Amino acid sequence: MIKIYENPASNELAQILQRPSYDFSKIEKIVKPILEKVQRGGDKALRKLALEYDHVELDDLWVTEEEFEAASGQVQDTLKESIQIAYQNIRKFHEAQLQAPTVMEVMPGVTCSRRQVPIEKVGLYVPGGSAPLFSTVLMLAVPAQIAGCHEVIISSPTNRLGQINPVVLYTAQLVGVKRVLKLGGAQAIAAMGYGTDTVPKVDKIFGPGNQYVTVAKQMLAKQDVAIDMPAGPSEVMVVVDKNSNAAYAASDLLAQAEHGPDSQVVLVSTSKKKAEEVNAEVEAQLSKLSRKKIAEKALGESSIIVVEGRKEVLNIINSYGPEHLIISTEKAEKLAEKVISAGSVFVGEYTPESAGDYASGTNHTLPTNGWAKSYSGVSVDSFVKNITYQRITQEGLMLLGPTVERMAEAELLDGHKNAVTVRLNKIREDGISGKLSKESPEDGESILFRKG
Amino acid sequence: MIKIYENPASNELAQILQRPSYDFSKIEKIVKPILEKVQRGGDKALRKLALEYDHVELDDLWVTEEEFEAASGQVQDTLKESIQIAYQNIRKFHEAQLQAPTVMEVMPGVTCSRRQVPIEKVGLYVPGGSAPLFSTVLMLAVPAQIAGCHEVIISSPTNRLGQINPVVLYTAQLVGVKRVLKLGGAQAIAAMGYGTDTVPKVDKIFGPGNQYVTVAKQMLAKQDVAIDMPAGPSEVMVVVDKNSNAAYAASDLLAQAEHGPDSQVVLVSTSKKKAEEVNAEVEAQLSKLSRKKIAEKALGESSIIVVEGRKEVLNIINSYGPEHLIISTEKAEKLAEKVISAGSVFVGEYTPESAGDYASGTNHTLPTNGWAKSYSGVSVDSFVKNITYQRITQEGLMLLGPTVERMAEAELLDGHKNAVTVRLNKIREDGISGKLSKESPEDGESILFRKG
Repeated sequence: MIKIYENPASNELAQILQRPSYDFSKIEKIVKPILEKVQRGGDKALRKLALEYDHVELDDLWVTEEEFEAASGQVQDTLKESIQIAYQNIRKFHEAQLQAPTVMEVMPGVTCSRRQVPIEKVGLYVPGGSAPLFSTVLMLAVPAQIAGCHEVIISSPTNRLGQINPVVLYTAQLVGVKRVLKLGGAQAIAAMGYGTDTVPKVDKIFGPGNQYVTVAKQMLAKQDVAIDMPAGPSEVMVVVDKNSNAAYAASDLLAQAEHGPDSQVVLVSTSKKKAEEVNAEVEAQLSKLSRKKIAEKALGESSIIVVEGRKEVLNIINSYGPEHLIISTEKAEKLAEKVISAGSVFVGEYTPESAGDYASGTNHTLPTNGWAKSYSGVSVDSFVKNITYQRITQEGLMLLGPTVERMAEAELLDGHKNAVTVRLNKIREDGISGKLSKESPEDGESILFRKG
Repeated sequence: MIKIYENPASNELAQILQRPSYDFSKIEKIVKPILEKVQRGGDKALRKLALEYDHVELDDLWVTEEEFEAASGQVQDTLKESIQIAYQNIRKFHEAQLQAPTVMEVMPGVTCSRRQVPIEKVGLYVPGGSAPLFSTVLMLAVPAQIAGCHEVIISSPTNRLGQINPVVLYTAQLVGVKRVLKLGGAQAIAAMGYGTDTVPKVDKIFGPGNQYVTVAKQMLAKQDVAIDMPAGPSEVMVVVDKNSNAAYAASDLLAQAEHGPDSQVVLVSTSKKKAEEVNAEVEAQLSKLSRKKIAEKALGESSIIVVEGRKEVLNIINSYGPEHLIISTEKAEKLAEKVISAGSVFVGEYTPESAGDYASGTNHTLPTNGWAKSYSGVSVDSFVKNITYQRITQEGLMLLGPTVERMAEAELLDGHKNAVTVRLNKIREDGISGKLSKESPEDGESILFRKG
């Protein structure tokens, strides 16, 4: 039974919604020498670490052409079809995220623009372990592909025979990733973050992982490589009212709980009766799950919060900032509109989180641990950077220059002022010349400043 | 004289372009107790630290109404006008960055959407010191205002009388910021990151600062608050060819060099003769600068790289990833189009960096230290997060559900599968009901899934 709290006072509420905090200093001590070994020893160190930690002897660090070919034959056709449907949905929704350049003449002769440029090299970490997480391949590689990243590599741990699950390889091929590294753990992150003779140093690393992976990403993010976002255990908040279907809500809570013993599961209900019904349903459904033990552990730390009305519900949602938010109440959309902090919102009773985890089209790499207050989930945005450009004509500088001179002077930066003054003096001396004047832009062909 | 390198080999080039690396462990040791003091002691600790480090006794941590009013009277009208022109340009260009929601029915009955939601509370750090950096107020507060952040606070150190520069206060008022905290250094970051009785805990902290500020931001970013981006010394790369104006290029190099002794200044030229001309111009202009000593120090560490042609130039630009890139060559736009990594690009001879630092409309908070390979400069994007939403009708789930079931099964997550199965079973049993079916969406009024 999940513990039920009725109308908690605000300090009690804060306690209930408090996430576990982790002290990573112990893990940092384990991860640091691994990072150093890879930085110093390169490929050789990677092979040694694979043997030491994963008990696997790797001749080639990379998946071979033959392995890719064999993988496709090992995946059932029905599963292939499902992956393709998911791929299409994810692709469609993410393609719509590409942004057109902004081009604007802010003053006569002063044109600014801004455009998305793909991050050149990205590394995607796909965890291994008991299950083949091919959905992670879709969620990371599809936006990378759409963004147009030049080099996309995946790293994923193998089994003891040095094999990566065929579904992962099939999915990688489907989304156009040709380079898959047979590495797991902190050493995989180090390989991609530092680069070796055979592994390219990437500009940004994405993907979930265990605590070693998380800490390795965090440590490298300080100086060496960008990362997608800070990581924490997965979370769901489910909101119900007196008319909600208790079995659906219970199934959603359990889907989250089965992720791991540290999964964060919260039910918010405006009906005590419904809260109890959900609790009973959780008990009933739990017994049938193969990952029952894991889910049970997570549920032991979970909470059901019963509150008066929608205003209180909204307050709880926004102060928690859940990774996944399922709203199964009446007028669910109206409530969803008012959400300020959440990773992804599932609106209405027929929208389980699982749909978004796999195939609805949204991304499942989302901010946990309250980071939804300031971070977005992974999207095409995560695989590009926006570069700004400006082009000023002689006329434009005559107009804007004095403003810049005055502001630089007030900030006591006369070198900044002088960069404008030397130019203005020359224009005043020579008059507006043909070159770089408004009338004859130098490069009429350039796409940078061409409007819509 | 800046040192000139001719056609360096790739390993030599890597050496030349190597940025200084900093060991922050010493500063971390100083910053850590400051953070702890603020976390434990709140406002009282803040007052004590202001006295200890800034030698100022603060009765009120916040700028008062009277101080705001007095500030406006102390700023010259011509400067006010300039700030207003800059404000208009920055506002116009940043307003164009707001994104319309994406709404898409990816399959019949499966609708996804994504929309920008402002980050609720943001803290902007504005450094003090010798000059009043009011331009930082514009560059951070304008996008915050456009994004619609609910709470925008500024923190900036005072002089020993407890006063903040009137130009900073005038600019804050102009952009609608009403709450200015009289704090500098690591304690200011701690105040905004943890919150105290009078300082709200913010969701994200922005702004430049000295090494203590930088390290404090970095330390808090691990667990407590998001930050704009990693910080490093400011940089410019200027590209010239045989026909470029040497005086302009020299003025741009000097504008960067005057920032600080650790400023990164690089000239890339396809003409040795022009490189030498620029060097001579640097000498000539340097003597007139008030911050001559600082600039001289930075120039001592700077480089001029002479290469054969545009291909080599482009390679240097993209492997360095400069914060600011000034292209003063012929066909500057054509070269700029091919740039993959840079923070902001200044195209053509009449586009000095100073223009973008203050008033062209682009943002001046940009990625340094090679982070331009993966990070963008500050923009409206930095002050919002994108939340995704999905709504599935009964028909939609009938269509998509089996895909989700199969994928969840293949990932060995039967709780995930079950969340779909319980719903599909009910629909199959009862038939499509009126509620939540395609024909009668529950909330016709909602803006979340409304197209265009």
